Amino acid sequence: MPGYPVLPAGLAYGGDYNPEQWPEDVWREDVRLMREAGVNLVTVGVFNWGLIEPREGQFDFARLDRILDLLHSAGVYADLATPTSSPPTWFRHRYPGSRLVDEGGRVLGGGSRHSFCPSSPDYAAASERVVAALAARYAGHPAVAMWHVHNEYGWANAHCHCPVSAEAFRAWLREKYGEVGALNAAWGTVFWGLTYGSFDEVEPPVAAPPGLLSGLRLDFMRFSVDAHIACFRRERETIRRFGDQPVTTNFMIPNCKPMDYRRWAEEVDVVANDHYLVAERPDSHIELALAADLTRSVAGGRPWMLMEHSTGAVNWQPRNVAKRPGEMRRNTLAHVARGSDAAMFFQWRASRHGAEKFHSAMVPHAGVDSEVWRDVVALGADLRRLGGVRGERVTAEVALVWDWESYWAVEFEWRPSADLRFRDRVEAYYEALWREHVTADFVHPSADLSPYRLVVLPSSYLLGEAPAKNLHRYVEAGGHLLVSCFSGIVDENDTIHPGPHPGALREVLGLTVEEFHPLREHETVPLRRSGDPGGTGPAGRIWSERVRLAGARAVHDFAGGPDAGHPAVTRNDLGGGTAWYVATALDPAPGDGAHDADLRGLVAGVLDHAGVSRPRGLPDTLEVVRRGDHLFLLNHADAAVTVGGVTGTGVLDGAAYTGSATVPAGGVVVVRP
Amino acid sequence: MPGYPVLPAGLAYGGDYNPEQWPEDVWREDVRLMREAGVNLVTVGVFNWGLIEPREGQFDFARLDRILDLLHSAGVYADLATPTSSPPTWFRHRYPGSRLVDEGGRVLGGGSRHSFCPSSPDYAAASERVVAALAARYAGHPAVAMWHVHNEYGWANAHCHCPVSAEAFRAWLREKYGEVGALNAAWGTVFWGLTYGSFDEVEPPVAAPPGLLSGLRLDFMRFSVDAHIACFRRERETIRRFGDQPVTTNFMIPNCKPMDYRRWAEEVDVVANDHYLVAERPDSHIELALAADLTRSVAGGRPWMLMEHSTGAVNWQPRNVAKRPGEMRRNTLAHVARGSDAAMFFQWRASRHGAEKFHSAMVPHAGVDSEVWRDVVALGADLRRLGGVRGERVTAEVALVWDWESYWAVEFEWRPSADLRFRDRVEAYYEALWREHVTADFVHPSADLSPYRLVVLPSSYLLGEAPAKNLHRYVEAGGHLLVSCFSGIVDENDTIHPGPHPGALREVLGLTVEEFHPLREHETVPLRRSGDPGGTGPAGRIWSERVRLAGARAVHDFAGGPDAGHPAVTRNDLGGGTAWYVATALDPAPGDGAHDADLRGLVAGVLDHAGVSRPRGLPDTLEVVRRGDHLFLLNHADAAVTVGGVTGTGVLDGAAYTGSATVPAGGVVVVRP
Amino acid sequence: MPGYPVLPAGLAYGGDYNPEQWPEDVWREDVRLMREAGVNLVTVGVFNWGLIEPREGQFDFARLDRILDLLHSAGVYADLATPTSSPPTWFRHRYPGSRLVDEGGRVLGGGSRHSFCPSSPDYAAASERVVAALAARYAGHPAVAMWHVHNEYGWANAHCHCPVSAEAFRAWLREKYGEVGALNAAWGTVFWGLTYGSFDEVEPPVAAPPGLLSGLRLDFMRFSVDAHIACFRRERETIRRFGDQPVTTNFMIPNCKPMDYRRWAEEVDVVANDHYLVAERPDSHIELALAADLTRSVAGGRPWMLMEHSTGAVNWQPRNVAKRPGEMRRNTLAHVARGSDAAMFFQWRASRHGAEKFHSAMVPHAGVDSEVWRDVVALGADLRRLGGVRGERVTAEVALVWDWESYWAVEFEWRPSADLRFRDRVEAYYEALWREHVTADFVHPSADLSPYRLVVLPSSYLLGEAPAKNLHRYVEAGGHLLVSCFSGIVDENDTIHPGPHPGALREVLGLTVEEFHPLREHETVPLRRSGDPGGTGPAGRIWSERVRLAGARAVHDFAGGPDAGHPAVTRNDLGGGTAWYVATALDPAPGDGAHDADLRGLVAGVLDHAGVSRPRGLPDTLEVVRRGDHLFLLNHADAAVTVGGVTGTGVLDGAAYTGSATVPAGGVVVVRP
Repeated sequence: MPGYPVLPAGLAYGGDYNPEQWPEDVWREDVRLMREAGVNLVTVGVFNWGLIEPREGQFDFARLDRILDLLHSAGVYADLATPTSSPPTWFRHRYPGSRLVDEGGRVLGGGSRHSFCPSSPDYAAASERVVAALAARYAGHPAVAMWHVHNEYGWANAHCHCPVSAEAFRAWLREKYGEVGALNAAWGTVFWGLTYGSFDEVEPPVAAPPGLLSGLRLDFMRFSVDAHIACFRRERETIRRFGDQPVTTNFMIPNCKPMDYRRWAEEVDVVANDHYLVAERPDSHIELALAADLTRSVAGGRPWMLMEHSTGAVNWQPRNVAKRPGEMRRNTLAHVARGSDAAMFFQWRASRHGAEKFHSAMVPHAGVDSEVWRDVVALGADLRRLGGVRGERVTAEVALVWDWESYWAVEFEWRPSADLRFRDRVEAYYEALWREHVTADFVHPSADLSPYRLVVLPSSYLLGEAPAKNLHRYVEAGGHLLVSCFSGIVDENDTIHPGPHPGALREVLGLTVEEFHPLREHETVPLRRSGDPGGTGPAGRIWSERVRLAGARAVHDFAGGPDAGHPAVTRNDLGGGTAWYVATALDPAPGDGAHDADLRGLVAGVLDHAGVSRPRGLPDTLEVVRRGDHLFLLNHADAAVTVGGVTGTGVLDGAAYTGSATVPAGGVVVVRP
Repeated sequence: MPGYPVLPAGLAYGGDYNPEQWPEDVWREDVRLMREAGVNLVTVGVFNWGLIEPREGQFDFARLDRILDLLHSAGVYADLATPTSSPPTWFRHRYPGSRLVDEGGRVLGGGSRHSFCPSSPDYAAASERVVAALAARYAGHPAVAMWHVHNEYGWANAHCHCPVSAEAFRAWLREKYGEVGALNAAWGTVFWGLTYGSFDEVEPPVAAPPGLLSGLRLDFMRFSVDAHIACFRRERETIRRFGDQPVTTNFMIPNCKPMDYRRWAEEVDVVANDHYLVAERPDSHIELALAADLTRSVAGGRPWMLMEHSTGAVNWQPRNVAKRPGEMRRNTLAHVARGSDAAMFFQWRASRHGAEKFHSAMVPHAGVDSEVWRDVVALGADLRRLGGVRGERVTAEVALVWDWESYWAVEFEWRPSADLRFRDRVEAYYEALWREHVTADFVHPSADLSPYRLVVLPSSYLLGEAPAKNLHRYVEAGGHLLVSCFSGIVDENDTIHPGPHPGALREVLGLTVEEFHPLREHETVPLRRSGDPGGTGPAGRIWSERVRLAGARAVHDFAGGPDAGHPAVTRNDLGGGTAWYVATALDPAPGDGAHDADLRGLVAGVLDHAGVSRPRGLPDTLEVVRRGDHLFLLNHADAAVTVGGVTGTGVLDGAAYTGSATVPAGGVVVVRP
Repeated sequence: MPGYPVLPAGLAYGGDYNPEQWPEDVWREDVRLMREAGVNLVTVGVFNWGLIEPREGQFDFARLDRILDLLHSAGVYADLATPTSSPPTWFRHRYPGSRLVDEGGRVLGGGSRHSFCPSSPDYAAASERVVAALAARYAGHPAVAMWHVHNEYGWANAHCHCPVSAEAFRAWLREKYGEVGALNAAWGTVFWGLTYGSFDEVEPPVAAPPGLLSGLRLDFMRFSVDAHIACFRRERETIRRFGDQPVTTNFMIPNCKPMDYRRWAEEVDVVANDHYLVAERPDSHIELALAADLTRSVAGGRPWMLMEHSTGAVNWQPRNVAKRPGEMRRNTLAHVARGSDAAMFFQWRASRHGAEKFHSAMVPHAGVDSEVWRDVVALGADLRRLGGVRGERVTAEVALVWDWESYWAVEFEWRPSADLRFRDRVEAYYEALWREHVTADFVHPSADLSPYRLVVLPSSYLLGEAPAKNLHRYVEAGGHLLVSCFSGIVDENDTIHPGPHPGALREVLGLTVEEFHPLREHETVPLRRSGDPGGTGPAGRIWSERVRLAGARAVHDFAGGPDAGHPAVTRNDLGGGTAWYVATALDPAPGDGAHDADLRGLVAGVLDHAGVSRPRGLPDTLEVVRRGDHLFLLNHADAAVTVGGVTGTGVLDGAAYTGSATVPAGGVVVVRP
């Protein structure tokens, strides 16, 4: 069976390569420049279906033959894509039943990509045919190092509501539930009298009056993931009939909410991810770190591939703020530090046509006399120097729980507060850890938690009975658990656990919640340390609730708002471990001052209690990550930082560090013993 | 003929009861707790269609039999619902022609409630069949005290735009107009050349270029009310074939704009209303008071039933702020003070499944060891003590005009200012009265106005000739009239009255309006007392206009803006009465200071002039209402208030009040001579 | 061939006249009042289709006969409209295939105007029939001075997405491209693999996943313009079979973005325009001046007709702020000053019915005892006195480039910054000129530029090779060019010019742009004069970029932001001329203080360099325009202004001006030698 690693040695470096957009004399310049920059892998053929199968069943591989031969002659490997994310116009024209239908019943138009139904049998047949032809021709080509199936599954067609999809959904439900009574029980259809008499009566969740069955929504999301995974498997199995190179597809972690990448990760030989900054966002590098840690985590800790990121601005955000000097390098090396064995970009050469012509590239419109190109060449050199990190692992003492199903469910309509968003909560806790220089994994709550000193549950609303027991056992066995509000409320069917909230976590937390008290927009409530009437503490947002202790003890109380005088942060010692609970939404604040008053201070205390090791006394703008025996120090501030306790060789700069290292403003130092 | 009252004695107390969501052992706990709380009426079967008719034409009443018997054995009466607001899934599947179509032409999906066309003959047949079966079986059941037809008519399907509805609309127009020329005249179709050659050419008002015929819109709104009323009548008449208990349906006053409840009220034996706070709104108890007064008014002053409200938070607002301690009690007692003989909640026991699982209930998820349950039990005791108020009337010396057709019309597209909203205006005048401790009725402008010392018209844009004459006669006979801007502009077809604005009110007001001068967003214009160049006065928003006096005299002038120096508030003495006019949008300000500078001061002066009696010197956070010989004092502030001139017995507390009563912070005192 | 002028003498004065909305006794009052006000032209029959053809193929002209005879007897000319913008209800009912379909696939409803497909053959046949009948009957009528085809083409149906339109679009593409390979090359379909195998596969740009082919969008916009022009030509040619009066249609410059009025202007005998203020906007008279200058420019400098404006408020904006005293007069005279030989209003008499009943009129709802009517009469007198200006030309030394295709393209999705809007940029430069008392023309970049001392390109994103060469030659020949950022980026297919940005303007500007650096929302970057480290300068918004000089020299540098220290404003001397470049978005500020710090100061310097003549020392609220030998002075401020160097006769007031003229607050003075 094929699998990781992909290249003979070192880290992969390159990008999406679309030579079909250029005359052949440009191709020759391309490979010359690739060699100059140290590019060793390019993704080819992502949007080639219409070119290699210009008419149904008629294939023309002449151009692709020349491209792959040229790459091979230059020593550049190909990540050969199947072109199935953008079916040819003839396919759409000839098979109108394959068109994508949105939740309002609109048949979506062509002229873009992804505008097809993932459950379409016509699409299945046509895509299998083209993949078979491609694999038959190129599985033996020496340039082909790996297969890149499709492109960004679910980017625009995560959910299709056409009649074909509806029928496929009903078949999926029959398979899952066996008989309709089981479905009715799971979805609680007795509420509002929505009991189904047969599976035939089920429709996908289209535009409807409010209050739609959340079980229907949840299962349709699950079904849709399966529909896309089935497309992937069909292509993967077709390829394997011909070749044994690793097969992957590019994920969009964490920015394609409908795709449950935990399940996707089981399907690929190596996890590959596309990541783009939210450009206007301050400290977007923290979101990048989260994405990289989450990607590594869905990959089970194994090295993964950064399949796309950008040298500068993207084109699809409202204001495509470009990267500042040094930012591309820090971004790339942060991904490598957190487990990537590749540094790939979209795309090699900026396009003159089409939707993405204002997307940055390795070869920009300005050409090679440009900062971007010089940075690309320099990055190639950096990556060569870092080749020794390939295959190394990142270990973490802390894990955050991330369950896509809970993410979906907590943001369905008609929750207590529309302001309580999963991403907001997980990012707040992640940022607090990042600023404390702690690297974290992400886990499903049913995972083996024994490797971790601390597990954090940020608003893990949906939590089944088995995962809850897993958490309980973890604490009893000496683990430390930090839970934020509105966790453990419902089971996997979005049914509230019996008894007082939080049903799945009452025992481990040693408390119940009598009533939720969502706050008004922009309202805050002060907290203070229990037993310290004059003290100050962090201010909560969004949420307050009436906690009743049942074994736990209060650490902080609400000092205002609807629950003034009642517990806000609690601690429960259970077996050998401890479970904390935070009954409101707290946020970390940037800066290196005292953090009594925010989430960072609270997290720091829990880390100390849990014995999580981490460097001390460093500014909270310095990113510190260990991968294998490499220590990465990435300085996101405008002033240099000197870090003590660092001895070894500078991998990028060749310096000898004895006891301390100074990281320049905006710079990166990597040290190896 | 059946009718009010419903129960043998006392006030009704209870809520929606959905035992089908629970195993039967919970039922037994339910009735035990109902007795503990003093519950005497529960609404049963609202969403039972799929349960009692699991397959078309096959009925299964076993469960409902047991439930009703159990209630009866516990001495709890049933408000038995027809289940027609949520047709079974088999109905939707078998009769796709019955599906709801929105104004964009989308066929709305299932998986929620109300997703059907009210004009569907298939729906009519199916709903009549199930209601007949239900009534035949239970009309003689001793637990059944009343019938609750359907649930919240118009909640999501107020308007259907399907072909069946279109045909029904055309039939309705034929009936109304006889021949198409009359329709053309009424709608003014000559404008833009939209003259219809036949009724067949009329389509419902679907998504279209802007500037749609407003006559078409108005008549479609009227038709839609009739379509729903026809559904109600069909069920009511079916029930009456079997039983004579009172029949009602639960209104949503004032928060279901498309339903003209003035017309609805004529159809029910007792008016029932659902009311939920806009939870984030400060002073939401004033909106509650308005809702209660409006409900009493559509009930013609007779006692009504509060059919649903909430013990705490609802689930369908963006931030479902829960009630604070004492708030549920004040809410309930305010409804009773303003004429309700019932205090019902949605719902008895909080659901574990479905769209409303985060809606509060009488038995919360936390169970009976909770503040909510203790408050529910205490409220039951309060209501028992208040039994004597049953059947008593509230009398008011002031009335506000509320006409749903004007409410609709003033908010159609292409009015002079999108900021001039009916609800905003009516709530401003209502709040000024509330803070002056004046209880008000609501009236249609064609009603008998002689009971009132003062009638207020808050932006009553649509006003026909006959109602206008009614107002004129009222003033001539000694009445007092207070009119706000943009009143009396068009007739019942949305045609501008001939001559200068305000055509319907020029004579009674003694003025004309030469031109409207809508203000910019957030712009304000100062007013000052006429003849007092240095004086200050209230600041107007949204609207200014050029008033030309023709008999009236100026009370305030605009001191800035497009009409500086011209009248802003006028007074016209006519016969024995007086008509005031306010040519801008003024607002009351909370607080007990001087109110020269806002609507409250202006209203106070008019009240004095009209001789409206009211208590003086009380804080504007104290709600004072008389119902029969009961004086209700509800304190919405955080400090106790002592009210003078109060002598009698405290109904809730048993205290003897001699000359004054102190109402605790957040508390309620009810005194009876 | 017919053409301008329309009336025997003087300026045209009047408005839309819709007597069909009124009984005939009102008609007689109408003509009496028209004579009182000096009205000499009214537009008749705009919405008459259903009246003159009440059933298909049956015509009834009795009413229109009477109206035209009555007008003729009163000496009022008719601008006779074809009624085709609002087909009769029978047409819509009988020909459902003619209905308008929006980009979401919704078939739009009736009950308004313009709800038809411009490519419908049924519409073509029906409209040709009614126009032929109308022209046959009235081409010889002595009252008919001109023909007003249709009304506001493209108001609501600029784009239709129905199957008929789709087929017409494909035919248009076949005609344009000949074979599909040419289309693929133009649209760059190789990107995302969207290569079309045949024209049959092309669909209009409907709702689809993001990133739709911009070539498809552009061509669909062009096709849609052609579809409407074809409708116009069909009617014009039909009319010409019967009569030779001038034929026009009313444009909506500049507020109907989809209509490329440069191409439209070639079709009409005289350009006619409707203009309405954006009422809430401060200084809306500057937007009016822009509209008038642009209208004159599309008319090729020939006199044009102001076909609609308003006496006061309109009805279709959110807050329809009415005109202040004197504003209507200034508005009308500004249009005349800038080339209009007509002053027409919508409408003569305010309607009691329909969508526009709150639109102001010459005869308001308040009747003739009103300021509006008195102003209308006074305006009639002003216009009679101004008769001598008829036919005179306005000459300008400055031109701004306005190309509808670039306007469309720069605002498609996925540009570097959504904040960079064409209207915003063109209005900023226009306002700077206006405040400098400079009258400007608008030109297409391929026009003959030799008449101008200065040409301004405000964000002219789309610029073909030939127009770019035209600009280059212009500068080489001594012209002055002022270019704002994001100009000259793509060709007419939205393909990026090869090489560094701005591909079409690199040489003339003497620079390249290495990278765009869009700013965050509300972010600003300071500028300072090059070589003056302590100096201050204007602040840029929205955009920064890395300019690399290649012949040009820096005038201002960025003093902050992503390009701090690099050029922000540059100057390139080339041949006899100079080309300036502004690499960010600057804005003019009102007021008469120093303008070093904004766009106005920069523009003033360029004007000085280019030797553009203009008055000095006047407040920036005084509008100064010359038309022929008439000097118009319009004072938009609240204080009188004395202007030196003015000698001649006051045309409006009869005064003799010798050396100076004082323009009253809000007043207008017109002086002729």
